[in-house]
Amino acid sequence: MSNDGRYIDLGTDARTAPTSRMWEAMQAVALNAVPFKGHEAVETLTLRACELTGMQSALLLPSCTMANLVAIMAHADRGDQVILEESSHIAWSEGWGMASIAGIYPKLLKGSRGAIDLSDIRAAIGRSVFSHRPHTKLLCLENTHNASGGAVLPLAYTEEVCAAMKERGISVHLDGARVFNAAVALHSPVRPLTETFDSVALNLNKGISALEGALLCGSSAFIRKASRLARTLGGDSQHKADIIAAAGLIGLNEMADVIAEDHRRARLFASAAQRIAGVAIELESVRTNIVMADVSGTGLAADEVLRRLLHRGVAAYLYNEHTLRFVFHRQISDDDAKTAARRLEEAIGHS
Amino acid sequence: MSNDGRYIDLGTDARTAPTSRMWEAMQAVALNAVPFKGHEAVETLTLRACELTGMQSALLLPSCTMANLVAIMAHADRGDQVILEESSHIAWSEGWGMASIAGIYPKLLKGSRGAIDLSDIRAAIGRSVFSHRPHTKLLCLENTHNASGGAVLPLAYTEEVCAAMKERGISVHLDGARVFNAAVALHSPVRPLTETFDSVALNLNKGISALEGALLCGSSAFIRKASRLARTLGGDSQHKADIIAAAGLIGLNEMADVIAEDHRRARLFASAAQRIAGVAIELESVRTNIVMADVSGTGLAADEVLRRLLHRGVAAYLYNEHTLRFVFHRQISDDDAKTAARRLEEAIGHS
Amino acid sequence: MSNDGRYIDLGTDARTAPTSRMWEAMQAVALNAVPFKGHEAVETLTLRACELTGMQSALLLPSCTMANLVAIMAHADRGDQVILEESSHIAWSEGWGMASIAGIYPKLLKGSRGAIDLSDIRAAIGRSVFSHRPHTKLLCLENTHNASGGAVLPLAYTEEVCAAMKERGISVHLDGARVFNAAVALHSPVRPLTETFDSVALNLNKGISALEGALLCGSSAFIRKASRLARTLGGDSQHKADIIAAAGLIGLNEMADVIAEDHRRARLFASAAQRIAGVAIELESVRTNIVMADVSGTGLAADEVLRRLLHRGVAAYLYNEHTLRFVFHRQISDDDAKTAARRLEEAIGHS
Amino acid sequence: MSNDGRYIDLGTDARTAPTSRMWEAMQAVALNAVPFKGHEAVETLTLRACELTGMQSALLLPSCTMANLVAIMAHADRGDQVILEESSHIAWSEGWGMASIAGIYPKLLKGSRGAIDLSDIRAAIGRSVFSHRPHTKLLCLENTHNASGGAVLPLAYTEEVCAAMKERGISVHLDGARVFNAAVALHSPVRPLTETFDSVALNLNKGISALEGALLCGSSAFIRKASRLARTLGGDSQHKADIIAAAGLIGLNEMADVIAEDHRRARLFASAAQRIAGVAIELESVRTNIVMADVSGTGLAADEVLRRLLHRGVAAYLYNEHTLRFVFHRQISDDDAKTAARRLEEAIGHS
Repeated sequence: MSNDGRYIDLGTDARTAPTSRMWEAMQAVALNAVPFKGHEAVETLTLRACELTGMQSALLLPSCTMANLVAIMAHADRGDQVILEESSHIAWSEGWGMASIAGIYPKLLKGSRGAIDLSDIRAAIGRSVFSHRPHTKLLCLENTHNASGGAVLPLAYTEEVCAAMKERGISVHLDGARVFNAAVALHSPVRPLTETFDSVALNLNKGISALEGALLCGSSAFIRKASRLARTLGGDSQHKADIIAAAGLIGLNEMADVIAEDHRRARLFASAAQRIAGVAIELESVRTNIVMADVSGTGLAADEVLRRLLHRGVAAYLYNEHTLRFVFHRQISDDDAKTAARRLEEAIGHS
Repeated sequence: MSNDGRYIDLGTDARTAPTSRMWEAMQAVALNAVPFKGHEAVETLTLRACELTGMQSALLLPSCTMANLVAIMAHADRGDQVILEESSHIAWSEGWGMASIAGIYPKLLKGSRGAIDLSDIRAAIGRSVFSHRPHTKLLCLENTHNASGGAVLPLAYTEEVCAAMKERGISVHLDGARVFNAAVALHSPVRPLTETFDSVALNLNKGISALEGALLCGSSAFIRKASRLARTLGGDSQHKADIIAAAGLIGLNEMADVIAEDHRRARLFASAAQRIAGVAIELESVRTNIVMADVSGTGLAADEVLRRLLHRGVAAYLYNEHTLRFVFHRQISDDDAKTAARRLEEAIGHS
Repeated sequence: MSNDGRYIDLGTDARTAPTSRMWEAMQAVALNAVPFKGHEAVETLTLRACELTGMQSALLLPSCTMANLVAIMAHADRGDQVILEESSHIAWSEGWGMASIAGIYPKLLKGSRGAIDLSDIRAAIGRSVFSHRPHTKLLCLENTHNASGGAVLPLAYTEEVCAAMKERGISVHLDGARVFNAAVALHSPVRPLTETFDSVALNLNKGISALEGALLCGSSAFIRKASRLARTLGGDSQHKADIIAAAGLIGLNEMADVIAEDHRRARLFASAAQRIAGVAIELESVRTNIVMADVSGTGLAADEVLRRLLHRGVAAYLYNEHTLRFVFHRQISDDDAKTAARRLEEAIGHS
Repeated sequence: MSNDGRYIDLGTDARTAPTSRMWEAMQAVALNAVPFKGHEAVETLTLRACELTGMQSALLLPSCTMANLVAIMAHADRGDQVILEESSHIAWSEGWGMASIAGIYPKLLKGSRGAIDLSDIRAAIGRSVFSHRPHTKLLCLENTHNASGGAVLPLAYTEEVCAAMKERGISVHLDGARVFNAAVALHSPVRPLTETFDSVALNLNKGISALEGALLCGSSAFIRKASRLARTLGGDSQHKADIIAAAGLIGLNEMADVIAEDHRRARLFASAAQRIAGVAIELESVRTNIVMADVSGTGLAADEVLRRLLHRGVAAYLYNEHTLRFVFHRQISDDDAKTAARRLEEAIGHS
């Protein structure tokens, strides 16, 4: 471990500890539960999610991976084609569930900072004359786009794409695991970023900091279908969902300011780290809580740099052979951000 | 609500509040988490589960429904036959996941208090000469057997069936959502009830009272396969699993005595309730925390009795047209058990 | 082989040789094919099938097993429940495709001579209040019912069941592999036996005697969906379908009289065979081209009787431990029927 | 239609009429069938296929699409990754069956004339450290490669790739729908082109000219698994397979010389057609029976050229917006080849 004594976990924002107010709310629900009256905290949470996203209905699920899978299954049937950006989280880290469980053909298109050209989408949908090709039923976008370093999709882009798909009768799903970060970056409420979509998945355990859970939002008919699918997958049988929901509600209502601070600290770290010799960071692209650092200029493999960083008490995520990903969240202070950059410099300098 | 002011939830033991010690342990883990060292609390929990069940390896999942589904998929391939008791929880409340997600043919056999005759199992496996029939790859048993009123499978029965299946090369999975109740009823450690099986699913949120979660236990190779499947279903992406695990560990270590009390209170309620005119309860079959009451002798439909009970502040579960199920757990006191019986009598007497 | 020199194949009617007129028609189509004008012979065949069955549209497929599978997939989605008679051909010889490929939950009900009591069907559909149960989307019937010895479903029965299902919004599919035999037995055109169903599968290679193929008939929208599914399964890529269709068309138009003869010969054989000591045949139930003979009264296992019969030049089908199935078709003469009965008597008398 | 009176179908070789010797053989088998002795013609055919390909066992199926699907399902499990050339027939015309029925994740790589760089294959297999990625179980190649104009994979290439995959424990399947064409082009027996693969699909209805059917060849264990899968799909229930097999056997034994003529005629057509202004054909790449002609230089869309060609009695296949595909087979004479080129010139000159 490092000489200054504190572990700094920049590996992910998915393990952020719930706040004290969340713990209090969870315990209160547990003790006062009147379960035969129904899941009141869940209902409050899903209503709030609808209000935020502009959707009719919502469903609490154990993970965003499941929310995305269930959304795909509710929008598309076995044998249909779903279009995805090739480095999107669904394709990269959840991708084969779409094929193995849903029987969907994933059509991967290369985007730029998460945005796929509308002309490429149109070409992939193809012409209806080739009747033996799969029908495209769904397009998935991701905002912010994890693999592009938390890139924010421009509002004009999502509006244009959603409108074009609506014309063709193709649904659009938003993997909004970090859509709260996108809203903060755009100084916008969440709603304009989501209401043009047919469905949205939200993650409660990242910047939102709740204990766990994801929300899938969409039309009432869509959520009824999704709910049946989730039960089949073992995701709708969480009898203590009210407890989980209590923390989620606090997160939805209170964490936007904290997320803004996460973004500021990500830039603080990035500014310091991009000055290290051999470390390449596109500073202007650090707009949310993720920093991608290409360390190939140091002559070291990224996994070697990571090994040395861990030895110095800093965790990051090995994105690929050349790149480390650093993610900021409410348990990282300004000091932590600066310390992490300093340790990165040491790690590169000394084995 | 009733005149004596307290709601009594006998609908399920799946919503039992975590204990204070569990809340403390969860918060401690959240604050001291050193996540890049790995999931330490999860490892401690799974090791404890292995010790209890006599299995090599274990996996923490969000729900017992998912644990059962993943177990079936890891044991059997698409197109195989899996044998189940026809009123088992998997068949009755999770059943179509096996067909729709796993592509398994479910062969349902009628059992007696959860136990299927070995001769019926043998007949269902059939002769290999009919090569166009599905291969039987798996038998599932459930202990205690929910739909039979928490019936306990005799140890001699599970040993004999597991041995017979081993000879045929057929795996046996135990849905042990309430196997802790079975162990208490048999005054036995858990291990003899589980170690003859190829895999066991345990539920942490019933008598065990943890916040949520289920454990799937089996051989190391089986758990590796199950882990990949769980990721696909969105069940292996819970980044804060250590927090959940901390409560589960306390449950596994400390709740056996509480479960014994649950059983005593179930019998207390059953003794009182079976004296009500028109209510039929097989007293000798009340061995764990579930009481099945046939109310058809009252001339009332079970859903009408339930409506009246709810009005008097008692929740139960509508098992079928004639039968209500009452489930006991750590939040039900001796007084509650007696009060519930009294309110049942009132409910039957007055609309 | 037998002393009178001729093999008599009563194992199945599925291997019946095409007629000379069929061979001529197939060759004519092959030589005069103008393929870029489309599949003309296929179109003529499917139009004829529509006319016969009262359906809007039809699709030529390589086998009746595929026709049934595709029909189930077009009517029902993954996770739905399909109701079937427990000894129906789909359940008995094709059954796990429904689970493994289609992800359907097969609900098996016991019928009487192929007919399931409407009250049992209604109970299996269940009440909508139990929302976690699979939805019933489809009922399958089979006419004639193979495993009941070619039993004919009464017209009043199929009409009543189809009407009752229509009211509930549940589709009904007819496995009509031998519906031509049912029509002959009822002295009826095919249409009244099929037009109340939502879809019908017809087999062209049994009594119809064509080279191969099955027809799936239904509404235009249903057949469009089925066609896409069939392509996925590799069943819609038969480029020489016109040739196959040419034989099928002759079969549909010309074989009804031949089928009537098959029935007469089945009864001829049954009358003779049921007089053999130890052989039990329900004579009044022999109404089409199948004879089920229970040989347990002979003290011999059915497979031993079959072995002896094969040695004497007669093939039958081992239905189960006690029962042999004899099937009549256009290559069996009156003499063959009598000879087969005589050889059965010898086979039972002498090892 | 054209002024010289003969339709010339260059749309596909999949509709080629069976030869007279094939018709005779089919009828002989139909009349002399002794079915209870087993499928003798099928056995002879599959043994011959094993001899030709160097495989242990083979299975007759209704179509090459089904043979490829069954092969993929027998090699790989739900959730595995299968690597394919992006314009391979499986990906292009059968592709979504792999996802929708088999639950396989198709990893598409761009090749050059059907051959994918071994380094790209290795990169797609990836490193085992990313345990949440799908496992690669299978690589599929296609020889000849339809979409590259019947391109022949070099023998050194297939040998090297198969050896490299064997080292990694990854199976390799050959879609050999036109592997007979490849063997003729390489002046080689079939066996060196196939024996390094784990499985091979052969098509009997293209240059081979049989009525229909495909053969899947592989190890005995693989074919046993494939056979069960095929039954589930409705592809192993063709009771008159012996008749189909009789034609296939003649094709395997007698058609190599005819295929050589097809290749000669394809070059004859290509030489003439590439001289037409605006028509681009890579003459040196016309090595088998397929000619790809890019007509964009004419200023006309390919579908307009096709419309005009059909009007003049020549069928071709609309490959994409710019390209028509012409396929040669035993019913196309030298005169037809020249006539087709002449009509193409007319079609381009006159609407």
